[in-house]
Amino acid sequence: MSRDANTGPGTGPGCCPLYHEAVELIGRRWTGAIVAILMEAGPLRFGEIAQAVPELSDRMLSERLRELEARGVVVREVTPGRPAKVAYALTDMGVGLQPALSALKAWAQHWLDEDRRRAAARIN
Amino acid sequence: MSRDANTGPGTGPGCCPLYHEAVELIGRRWTGAIVAILMEAGPLRFGEIAQAVPELSDRMLSERLRELEARGVVVREVTPGRPAKVAYALTDMGVGLQPALSALKAWAQHWLDEDRRRAAARIN
Repeated sequence: MSRDANTGPGTGPGCCPLYHEAVELIGRRWTGAIVAILMEAGPLRFGEIAQAVPELSDRMLSERLRELEARGVVVREVTPGRPAKVAYALTDMGVGLQPALSALKAWAQHWLDEDRRRAAARIN
Repeated sequence: MSRDANTGPGTGPGCCPLYHEAVELIGRRWTGAIVAILMEAGPLRFGEIAQAVPELSDRMLSERLRELEARGVVVREVTPGRPAKVAYALTDMGVGLQPALSALKAWAQHWLDEDRRRAAARIN
């Protein structure tokens, strides 16, 4: 996908490559959940994140944290000691996702619950 | 994944199943782009959406539109005539994503461009 190609009829900022990249970064399986947990409770140790998202395997969590670190959304903080303490925290870039994630959470609470109520109504 | 299990230490609203569902719904490949285009320019015909996201194959667009219809985010509007006109529009549920997508767009423009500038600075 060409990042700079933003031409052609009907092409607006909506399908701009940066936005597209952001949606897919945050939408990767478990990434949104990990960022939300660090937003609320971080910095957290690996085991604490794993405990907060029990369906997420350690291997997948480790992979997602590495990706988020590589993108600059998460930073791995090492506090020297015996043993050294390792925690994961959001960077300023990560904290910057707060308005988007809050709005998405509000949408989910409104519309996905509604959806579920309608589905329940059809069944009963 | 159990939808109602939201217990255990460290589990906050951040990893609530509804939010998780919303992130993964919007984050599916191309879904965020399709919703954004309909938000700005919709209702649009199939070919107009395809033209606005040239990297997206017709087959994938058709699959994504069906998913969004099934979730209640998009509605397929048929205007009778010869030939009948078919257009895709956001439902109220779809329009409700506007604040989340705008915030994500603003984040992308700020942080992903920054990222690119830093990368360019390292190369030059």
